[in-house]
Amino acid sequence: MRIGYLLGPELRDVLQNGDPEELQELLDEIHPEDLADLVDQLPDELAARLLKKLPTEDAADIFERLEDETQEALVEEMGAESVAQIAAEMAPDDRFELLETLPEQASEAVLQSLEKVDPEAAEEVAQIDKWPDKSAGRLMTTGYVSVPLQCTVGEALQALREALEAETIYYVYAVTAAHRLHSVASLRDLLRADPALPLAEVATENVISVPPTMDQEDVARRMAKYDLTAMPVVDERGAFLGIITVDDVIDVLTEEQSEDVQKLGGVEPIEAPYFATSFFTFIRKRAFWLMVLFVGEFFTGTALRSYDKVLEAVTALSFYVPLLVSTGGNSGGQSSSLIIRGMAVGEIKMSDWWRVLVREVSQGAVLGLILAIVGVVRVLLWNDGASLAMVIGITLIGIVIMGCSVGSMLPFLLKRAGFDPATSSAPFIASLVDVLGILIYFNFAKILLKDVIEKAVQGH
Amino acid sequence: MRIGYLLGPELRDVLQNGDPEELQELLDEIHPEDLADLVDQLPDELAARLLKKLPTEDAADIFERLEDETQEALVEEMGAESVAQIAAEMAPDDRFELLETLPEQASEAVLQSLEKVDPEAAEEVAQIDKWPDKSAGRLMTTGYVSVPLQCTVGEALQALREALEAETIYYVYAVTAAHRLHSVASLRDLLRADPALPLAEVATENVISVPPTMDQEDVARRMAKYDLTAMPVVDERGAFLGIITVDDVIDVLTEEQSEDVQKLGGVEPIEAPYFATSFFTFIRKRAFWLMVLFVGEFFTGTALRSYDKVLEAVTALSFYVPLLVSTGGNSGGQSSSLIIRGMAVGEIKMSDWWRVLVREVSQGAVLGLILAIVGVVRVLLWNDGASLAMVIGITLIGIVIMGCSVGSMLPFLLKRAGFDPATSSAPFIASLVDVLGILIYFNFAKILLKDVIEKAVQGH
Repeated sequence: MRIGYLLGPELRDVLQNGDPEELQELLDEIHPEDLADLVDQLPDELAARLLKKLPTEDAADIFERLEDETQEALVEEMGAESVAQIAAEMAPDDRFELLETLPEQASEAVLQSLEKVDPEAAEEVAQIDKWPDKSAGRLMTTGYVSVPLQCTVGEALQALREALEAETIYYVYAVTAAHRLHSVASLRDLLRADPALPLAEVATENVISVPPTMDQEDVARRMAKYDLTAMPVVDERGAFLGIITVDDVIDVLTEEQSEDVQKLGGVEPIEAPYFATSFFTFIRKRAFWLMVLFVGEFFTGTALRSYDKVLEAVTALSFYVPLLVSTGGNSGGQSSSLIIRGMAVGEIKMSDWWRVLVREVSQGAVLGLILAIVGVVRVLLWNDGASLAMVIGITLIGIVIMGCSVGSMLPFLLKRAGFDPATSSAPFIASLVDVLGILIYFNFAKILLKDVIEKAVQGH
Repeated sequence: MRIGYLLGPELRDVLQNGDPEELQELLDEIHPEDLADLVDQLPDELAARLLKKLPTEDAADIFERLEDETQEALVEEMGAESVAQIAAEMAPDDRFELLETLPEQASEAVLQSLEKVDPEAAEEVAQIDKWPDKSAGRLMTTGYVSVPLQCTVGEALQALREALEAETIYYVYAVTAAHRLHSVASLRDLLRADPALPLAEVATENVISVPPTMDQEDVARRMAKYDLTAMPVVDERGAFLGIITVDDVIDVLTEEQSEDVQKLGGVEPIEAPYFATSFFTFIRKRAFWLMVLFVGEFFTGTALRSYDKVLEAVTALSFYVPLLVSTGGNSGGQSSSLIIRGMAVGEIKMSDWWRVLVREVSQGAVLGLILAIVGVVRVLLWNDGASLAMVIGITLIGIVIMGCSVGSMLPFLLKRAGFDPATSSAPFIASLVDVLGILIYFNFAKILLKDVIEKAVQGH
């Protein structure tokens, strides 16, 4: 019977009975990612029993791929010490991630056990922890293969063959006696070269690297640009600290994408899957921005209130308020999303603000004009009269230009002030554009409908 | 003098003079990506001269990395035939991408020349073209290394060493006589095994693959899950069509992220960088959604107009319209961004709609209540009276529940109807939520302010 053909329930039996030989066969045949999916579905008690039966190395392969909740439950079920033994076998970056996702108490218990079980592994955690959140330093691993400068191609190949712990063996890094990164050779180049050649003949000194403080999104962009599957991390004094592998970069891109979408939707980033996120987490993450936006919108009330005479004189003005306000918001939203994205991928720099403003104002003028034509026709069809049609037309042009300017400039201001433009632009733009839209609208109305308003006020 | 230390202008001299020996040194020392950046900045004429001087293979390495505009200009400058010769040396997926990004006329001219220069390369283009846009088939390349099932580890290694054209040599694929994919071995495993062993001892038959029709985002997710650097593409009859390499997947993720951000901002996806996109492209891409949203918002005017008596009776009601409408929109935007993202990463399936609705309605009730408390206080502080405070409070609860329901359910409906929820949700949600918000508001007002309204109407 080939294990690969076992159906779900039978596979579960094997996992539950945990016959060592059958288990070993499973591990050889099934990708640890799929095994982890299965273990995620087992009752915690069975999962704990299974992991304890496995060789620690194999257990680590599965454990690091389990869902956060399962990991948390297993610390409870197996005890911090067993988990620490498994954690000691993980790659440094995966180990760090485990400790970071576990709830504080569990994380501390595991770390304390780890200090006894494997002080070196605990030290590696501390080393990673000292780098800023979302930096290259947090992503890197020391699981690379380095050789002395002077060795031959054959020796380098031998080092790669013997590196059982390495996360990637597709590059070998030549380092100086002081562990400075000197040059790099790909396994591809090594395999094709004469083993007797000195490594220096094959390796390139033009090493592309990143500093440990670089933001993870910039690291991802740099790796994508140069099509690397591993990126060395080198500090400002030239010390070779570690490498970042491409699988971690893909995770970063996916995570950042989720964050962007959520931030633009006005939700604080939520890391867990939708159904795994608790009710109150959602409330907390959503209530904040909803409240900020809500309070910001109070100013629209203040603005409208100051035009109460105008509103009473021409009630029809109030019918267009949501239309005009939302059009300003939409054009502002377009501009800000273009600029925020352009900044994120490095196409737009801080010094470009002036060029951006010129482009956005002129785009706003053209877009506003297009909408104004349609808007004027609509007002006339509603029989609200030519003067009101003119007010709406001019207001639309003004509002779209204003929306494009505010939407494009606020990301620059926020970035200059040290905020993340993606997080904080939306609420500011919404409130500012809405209030400014009302001011533009009623001031044009006051000027263009002067006669009508005066007549109405006198009539009272 | 080491080329690596040349400064910009000097480097440019070398490129301009194009001394073959100096050029060769450059190519060895500088990453083609950086060379392409430099060539992008040269005048078109110089760039064309330089590329013609280079061996075609090296020219291809640079050409495929140039910006779209430079490629287009070079077709003009060098002629379609020279470009076809370069294109023949590109990897099939890069060649396809070049032909796809070139303007139609230039693309056809190059393709026609390619059919003469290298009919096989032209055929590969046709093969890729038959797969749907953004599918695995479009991303794959035939630059993989395959060996017969029966060979040894040593023979497989030899095949990898000799595969000069392969995009990746980190996996070897064992195929049957009928070119079906049977098993896969990583170079890592091969290097560590005894070369005399049969390949079957090292290779795993549990091959993770994707069908050619799979959406590129799903491919990216699958590769990320299994930490693969190359993913085989196998059709439903088991034929081995090609592989997708990790660098292409990273590009896909970056591209999809830009698209998501732009779509959520109400802009049609723009592929070129901000400053490289022409004024009229922006107008076209922005005007469409802006107009759709604008016309959708007309309904708010219709809705408000139908409550003109109520508005005339209680002018203060109109002060709260933007606040209430935008709060509905914000809560709807939050829900839709959570659901769209959950769908995109596969956490939320179509069948989950009922569970989602229950969660969203209850979240909406709690969030609405929180906002209502603040809203009521604000109305009282503005001295608008207790009855109006009650209207605003109840409306807020109703509007947020409605926003969460509409925002979470529309992506399901749109997906069921065959639309991309990310593209089309925003405008529908905006218009629907705004109009429904007005209906909720004025109906509560009509009920709760009945006496005040009747008195005012009689007073006229």
